[in-house]
Amino acid sequence: MTTPSRRDLANALRFLAIDAVEAAKSGHPGMPMGMADIAEVLWNDFLSHSPNNPKWFNRDRFVLSNGHGSMLVYGLLHLSGYDLPLDELRNFRQLHSKTAGHPEYGHTPGVETTTGPLGQGLANAVGMALAEQLLAQRFNRPEYNIVDHHTWVFLGDGCLMEGISHEVASLAGTWGLGKLIAFWDDNRISIDGDTAGWFTDDTAARFEAYGWQVIRKVDGHDPQEISQAIKTAQAETGKPTLICCRTTIGFGSPGKAGKESSHGAPLGKDEVAATRDALGWPHAPFEIPADIRDGWRAGNAGLVREEQWNRQFDAYAKAYPALAAELVRRSHGELPEDFADAAQAYVAKLQQEGPVVASRKASQMALDAFGPLLPELIGGSADLAHSNLTLWKGSKSVTSGDASANYVHYGVREFGMSAISNGLALHGGFIPYDATFLVFSDYSRNALRMSALIPTRAIHVFTHDSIGLGEDGPTHQPVEHLAALRYIPNNDVWRPCDAVESAVSWQAAIERKDGPSCLVFSRQNLAHQPRNTQQVADIARGGYVLSDPGEATFDLILLATGSEVELAMEAMCRLAGDGIKARVVSMPCAEVFARQPLEWREGVLPGWCRKRVAVEAGVTGYWRQFVGLDGAVVGIDQFGASAPADKLFAHFGITVDAVVDAAKALA
Amino acid sequence: MTTPSRRDLANALRFLAIDAVEAAKSGHPGMPMGMADIAEVLWNDFLSHSPNNPKWFNRDRFVLSNGHGSMLVYGLLHLSGYDLPLDELRNFRQLHSKTAGHPEYGHTPGVETTTGPLGQGLANAVGMALAEQLLAQRFNRPEYNIVDHHTWVFLGDGCLMEGISHEVASLAGTWGLGKLIAFWDDNRISIDGDTAGWFTDDTAARFEAYGWQVIRKVDGHDPQEISQAIKTAQAETGKPTLICCRTTIGFGSPGKAGKESSHGAPLGKDEVAATRDALGWPHAPFEIPADIRDGWRAGNAGLVREEQWNRQFDAYAKAYPALAAELVRRSHGELPEDFADAAQAYVAKLQQEGPVVASRKASQMALDAFGPLLPELIGGSADLAHSNLTLWKGSKSVTSGDASANYVHYGVREFGMSAISNGLALHGGFIPYDATFLVFSDYSRNALRMSALIPTRAIHVFTHDSIGLGEDGPTHQPVEHLAALRYIPNNDVWRPCDAVESAVSWQAAIERKDGPSCLVFSRQNLAHQPRNTQQVADIARGGYVLSDPGEATFDLILLATGSEVELAMEAMCRLAGDGIKARVVSMPCAEVFARQPLEWREGVLPGWCRKRVAVEAGVTGYWRQFVGLDGAVVGIDQFGASAPADKLFAHFGITVDAVVDAAKALA
Repeated sequence: MTTPSRRDLANALRFLAIDAVEAAKSGHPGMPMGMADIAEVLWNDFLSHSPNNPKWFNRDRFVLSNGHGSMLVYGLLHLSGYDLPLDELRNFRQLHSKTAGHPEYGHTPGVETTTGPLGQGLANAVGMALAEQLLAQRFNRPEYNIVDHHTWVFLGDGCLMEGISHEVASLAGTWGLGKLIAFWDDNRISIDGDTAGWFTDDTAARFEAYGWQVIRKVDGHDPQEISQAIKTAQAETGKPTLICCRTTIGFGSPGKAGKESSHGAPLGKDEVAATRDALGWPHAPFEIPADIRDGWRAGNAGLVREEQWNRQFDAYAKAYPALAAELVRRSHGELPEDFADAAQAYVAKLQQEGPVVASRKASQMALDAFGPLLPELIGGSADLAHSNLTLWKGSKSVTSGDASANYVHYGVREFGMSAISNGLALHGGFIPYDATFLVFSDYSRNALRMSALIPTRAIHVFTHDSIGLGEDGPTHQPVEHLAALRYIPNNDVWRPCDAVESAVSWQAAIERKDGPSCLVFSRQNLAHQPRNTQQVADIARGGYVLSDPGEATFDLILLATGSEVELAMEAMCRLAGDGIKARVVSMPCAEVFARQPLEWREGVLPGWCRKRVAVEAGVTGYWRQFVGLDGAVVGIDQFGASAPADKLFAHFGITVDAVVDAAKALA
Repeated sequence: MTTPSRRDLANALRFLAIDAVEAAKSGHPGMPMGMADIAEVLWNDFLSHSPNNPKWFNRDRFVLSNGHGSMLVYGLLHLSGYDLPLDELRNFRQLHSKTAGHPEYGHTPGVETTTGPLGQGLANAVGMALAEQLLAQRFNRPEYNIVDHHTWVFLGDGCLMEGISHEVASLAGTWGLGKLIAFWDDNRISIDGDTAGWFTDDTAARFEAYGWQVIRKVDGHDPQEISQAIKTAQAETGKPTLICCRTTIGFGSPGKAGKESSHGAPLGKDEVAATRDALGWPHAPFEIPADIRDGWRAGNAGLVREEQWNRQFDAYAKAYPALAAELVRRSHGELPEDFADAAQAYVAKLQQEGPVVASRKASQMALDAFGPLLPELIGGSADLAHSNLTLWKGSKSVTSGDASANYVHYGVREFGMSAISNGLALHGGFIPYDATFLVFSDYSRNALRMSALIPTRAIHVFTHDSIGLGEDGPTHQPVEHLAALRYIPNNDVWRPCDAVESAVSWQAAIERKDGPSCLVFSRQNLAHQPRNTQQVADIARGGYVLSDPGEATFDLILLATGSEVELAMEAMCRLAGDGIKARVVSMPCAEVFARQPLEWREGVLPGWCRKRVAVEAGVTGYWRQFVGLDGAVVGIDQFGASAPADKLFAHFGITVDAVVDAAKALA
């Protein structure tokens, strides 16, 4: 058996991609063919991972930001010994296979994040590298570099054109993320063709302007040059590095190399045959000769690496038992044992004290209450710290160098912020929260979707949640955003009505392990609502009866969220004066309510009562699923205006009068 | 009367801002105080405009991308002689005033676009400058520079941190927009404080990397330096220019200058008094001395400018009557007289021929049919031309230098693209369309919102509209997007079911003057639906009866859009076999349907019939406003998966069987 050349090893990746795309009749061969040589060098000579344990905490993170090249990572995982058998590759892009069209976290072992929406992989990687930097700061001790790994990213021209690349590359430069190393697949081709017509940036100069180390003009098909560049990247520990790799998309295809036709479709039977000839790869589809397979032996090396680390960690745990226990707990995403009790006690206290504050203020109070218990909580805001009220007493900026740094000044970069949150959460060791005005959830919307899809335990705080924002006017007043966020699958959207519900929403978001939460808070003060102990417990069910007219039955239901709950409560009193008995339902989180047993939901919104009025300072259509065609919705289906908040509520008819009128029209 | 100094003129702007914010008890004095000197030089010495005719076509465009400094532009408009009386400034941020918290297009004469969401003003300006460049190319003739104006932008650190600034600055560089001149308010302060902690870019180097001329280190409080920089900017006609102005936020305030406390709140009574002293401004609030008022005399100069241009245009119209007539028509946003008839004839022909194609293909056919009639149509795609099918036979790239260039390769820049569309539409002379996959409407979402809010006549094309996208998987499959787009007020969302409805949707979007349209198309082929002449005409009503069971009444209604209309039609046939009579309603645009008279809506969806099944490959909640609590919805409330499209529809239960079952459960 001969020793395979590096090119042979890389060609294995190329043909796995070519053949899988051919079998699926769909997919993207061009990128894997172009980046195979880089991937081969990185994975065989540098990547520190453990294929038998894809969850090893100190592994290097590898992110494919140009996720359409998914077959590259599937080939790498398969050849490196991850649990991804050849049959899965044969089933590329088929229902129930582990080889989805784009890499999906949790679906394929070894895939570190879900990519495809361009630029976000880079952002996730920046989050991962920040997590590593901060954990190292917090946990490492002399002779114990317990947290010490690189984050590697592959990215294409598309990622670099996207605005998010600007936001996160800028932050990575500011933070000096020396262990973040990105490979730019500089092939000068995007889907529309030669990028000369629409991508004329001097990308190297641009990244230097962000404070990155840039390694120019690396031949992406020369293992020596690639290897040298990686060493140079690793040697620079104070700056992230961009390695600019000149590559040929569809490398090896006589007819399609260097052309956009190799990007997003099978090469076609004849071209595949021609490529086999050109690259000297006589093997049948999905056949990997034994010597080449042997050349990809990361599994054993990984085992050794992980063993070494385990031994080091054992020693560390003896020397620093408390630190080690905290790291283990945080890396497993487990909350401190006393958290639930402490949170419950805080909520009970709030119910008793009944503070009348804006829910954004209540949010900050919750952070002050829960933050000291949760060193894993890492917060931030897109330059609205004093409006979002995301700074709490224990906040320390990540640029402070403090070992327990836990606050990120993201600047005005909403999309990058939320995608970095996803990276922080994916890395482990942190529960991230981020914040902006609700209307600017638009800017970060696809990152919020990715939080739900990946899914990540990310908490997205949105303040200034309605026309109650006031004078800043319609550009800053959300109208459609609550509904739009709720329709993202697996996204819990909380809009609490007072300080008590605000604290419960924080607790729920922190405790939720299987997806993100959006916490939506008001700018303006909100009344405190009376509740008995059972009602306080019921908040966590997402929707519950806040007020019932005594033992007797009721005539209609008033259903509300957030700042409109107090309108519903006042309307209930007014209606009672007219002999109309109304139940008031508070619905802080419709998604959590929807997950309750039918019995609960029917108990809160009994089918027999079709006289229902929903009240929310947002679009009305959303509430028809609760009130149907027989009910009414008091809301707003147009853009707001610039004026003091009270004037706006009156002007747009979101008032106690409007609720009473709507109820009477039904009653 | 003495001649006021330039500083005095600028101080008038400062105190109008200070006093208006003080009166409103809300607003942003810091930016107007910081940029007043720059604004004074630009508006008094360079800006070519006509205050008496804010719609003069060849005026310079001035955009305040850092829109929170709205009082700066209100002060400029007032002092320059626009129809914005002092009383409006006294009523800053009050209901029904013309001085909203952020500048609003159509609300205040002279405001060129609605700004506030950061970075988008710059993007709009890039669109305006592109429009100018292309119109000049098309319409100017030797000795007749009929289209010849600058586009000026003020922007702050926030705009530069936003990702969209990267996308559009890159394109402006590629396009060599020599008449685009941006002023960076480099005050090193953002809301969270000193930007050193989160904004460390070398912005000058970054813009040079985009191919801009950059003028560094201009003292933003020195009229001489500002003036010289503007001249240098104007002299460079092949590149856009960024003028980096070092300024002091809150300039003149002894206690708050240079501090974030001056950014977003009134200075406070004492500080206002101290600032009056410091700047030597003894005048009462809103009092502008006559000599200073005389110093701001743009009105007359503007009249002269416009007169000169009118004379030139008359001569041009004699020399080139056809060109002149086209420019007038296009600048007024009027369609060619024959358009409506031609479109109707095309639609009728399609109905007769009944092509079975993907609606994205039908969209391209519509472009081929309508494009030759509409030189004002300017298209583009975010690097998905061959997937979105946005290129038509007459498409010519804007980088070709062709005088009738009408196609933009935006690269992978969705947000920038849609915000540039808004700028193209605002400039006038063009009806822009742009395109990406529906799922990536997320990336451009706030620009789509701005299209509706401004509003602009922008057409946003979104293809690959459901799990029908297939193998690319959940990151690329929209689920919640249709509902989320429909909830944006004033946004018409069309999802046609066949080639005929596709053509009608294009016609509607082109003819709509008062807002944007989103045109949502399928990747996969769609059946042709039979219609009589009346039904073809009814499509334009947004929702209509596609099929009724003869003269007799019906048992239930099947309501569908897009690719699911054929499921409804097939289900109708199957149900008929079981003796259940179903009406089929096609609802290509729920917003247009909602604008129809009650009589029409009741005719299509009669109140007596509560047995209703809605079918759409998207979230179900949206359709409850049509089917209520008694009806059913066949849709998808989870993320999709990677597999061939037919497998996915079966897997997620969006099938004829599912519709039949749902209908029978009601019947």
